[in-house]
Amino acid sequence: MSQPLFNTICLVGIGLINSSIARAVRKHGLAARIVTLDSSDQACQTALELGIVDAASTDPAQMIPGADLVMIGTPVGAVEKVAQAIGPHLAAGTIVSDVGSVKIAVIRDLTPSLPEGVHFVPGHPIAGTEHSGPAAGFAELFEGRWCILTPLPGTDDKAIAKVSDLWSAMGSMIETMDPSHHDQVLAVTSHLPHLIAYTIVGTANDLEGHLQQEVIKFSASGFRDFTRIAASDPIMWRDIFLSNKEAVLEMIQRFTEDLTALQRAIRWGEGEVLEKRFTETRAIRRAIVDAKQA
Amino acid sequence: MSQPLFNTICLVGIGLINSSIARAVRKHGLAARIVTLDSSDQACQTALELGIVDAASTDPAQMIPGADLVMIGTPVGAVEKVAQAIGPHLAAGTIVSDVGSVKIAVIRDLTPSLPEGVHFVPGHPIAGTEHSGPAAGFAELFEGRWCILTPLPGTDDKAIAKVSDLWSAMGSMIETMDPSHHDQVLAVTSHLPHLIAYTIVGTANDLEGHLQQEVIKFSASGFRDFTRIAASDPIMWRDIFLSNKEAVLEMIQRFTEDLTALQRAIRWGEGEVLEKRFTETRAIRRAIVDAKQA
Repeated sequence: MSQPLFNTICLVGIGLINSSIARAVRKHGLAARIVTLDSSDQACQTALELGIVDAASTDPAQMIPGADLVMIGTPVGAVEKVAQAIGPHLAAGTIVSDVGSVKIAVIRDLTPSLPEGVHFVPGHPIAGTEHSGPAAGFAELFEGRWCILTPLPGTDDKAIAKVSDLWSAMGSMIETMDPSHHDQVLAVTSHLPHLIAYTIVGTANDLEGHLQQEVIKFSASGFRDFTRIAASDPIMWRDIFLSNKEAVLEMIQRFTEDLTALQRAIRWGEGEVLEKRFTETRAIRRAIVDAKQA
Repeated sequence: MSQPLFNTICLVGIGLINSSIARAVRKHGLAARIVTLDSSDQACQTALELGIVDAASTDPAQMIPGADLVMIGTPVGAVEKVAQAIGPHLAAGTIVSDVGSVKIAVIRDLTPSLPEGVHFVPGHPIAGTEHSGPAAGFAELFEGRWCILTPLPGTDDKAIAKVSDLWSAMGSMIETMDPSHHDQVLAVTSHLPHLIAYTIVGTANDLEGHLQQEVIKFSASGFRDFTRIAASDPIMWRDIFLSNKEAVLEMIQRFTEDLTALQRAIRWGEGEVLEKRFTETRAIRRAIVDAKQA
């Protein structure tokens, strides 16, 4: 048997993404040993019961030493504290990576606590579901999906290659880009849509009692999809919006202008404005279907 | 063999919904004969080629006489003209129904052209896909979904019962409500979500070139779902927004207030506001899953 890519992978925070990594790493034989560090005793126990890790603990001193890859999968707002907790236990040569949906803030919060000689390769798999927790993961989550890496200038090429190989082996396609560019792209494709979904489901939730009951009963295509998105993990998303504030606020502003223009067209009965806009959006859908990301 | 529910059903406008009705009616043996009246020669020909109707024509004089059920499935903005075209050919005793997503405007536009003795039973199946046209339909579209009927006071009970029986036989659950109440409920569950999806995909479409390409490439969960909704038929949706103006404008207003509140919370770093809101929305999703409409 060939040598696995890593000796020991330590997954920090065993939620949807890291528990999917655990399953995919095991499925494809990418590490000799998989351990997890999680602040919740309950999550550690669940991960052990699911049999997706070889060891689990809330104590960094037990889990971090000996890991040649440390993958951080906590909500991005927790990264600074996590970095301070694991930093003293990281040996030179260890690769640290992450799966956070925001890259500038994660780099800012993580870098100061990393000892000399530790290789940091920030990453973000464009994959997920509305479910959370260690039981929600599955080995196929990353197959056919993009993983974006945003390494800083001067990072060891071998470390980047090993993280890239890990994602390829789990079925992902790899793209490398600048962290701030990543945060702009994701503000449009993921952060704004989630905020909008949370908003509209909240608007429905505030309706007068009898109307609210019927909204649930007659939840049509459209609203139903929004409720699925708006069922995503509240802490994770709170942190994303606060960590990618500038790009998200910019996109909300553009969105609000566009919505106001359509609102005005509806009020004044300008059918041709609506029809033109609704026809343009079909082209984007076709492009996404063609790109096999639908 | 028992008598089918109807002798001849005439489907006016052979798009996604009416072509699905054609298939379901045939599958369950609910009419002896199915014909279609459509303003497009092409659509008539496609319907005949698909074998989902027994006859098709653009001429009301050929298709309407002899039908004991006329089901109108055109965009709601076309209903007034359709009613004027078919009115002279409707015999007393004929049942007229429709599948429009807006009920007040359809009733307003249709009623004046109906001769004495014709029974009008407005309806709306809460079912659909983002695809349109006669080839997009399928017999199972209505199974397990609600169909809302909004009959006017004084309508013949037997006519209401026959339309209700048709939907039940195609697998739907039936609810009866007031037309204006219908329009309010649908403004939240369907019309506003579609407008929001069209808006956000339009916002992305307007981005600077390189960013737009990456939005397509890295279309994540969230945006991807919105593009599917925003691929819905432009004419149909233009008409819905213009026909349900008051309720839609009221819901846009509430939505905008709620979005502005979240925008402010992001700007000022008020994490607890975001977390509270995002937690509340999970409950609505659970209720929809429990109601088996997910």
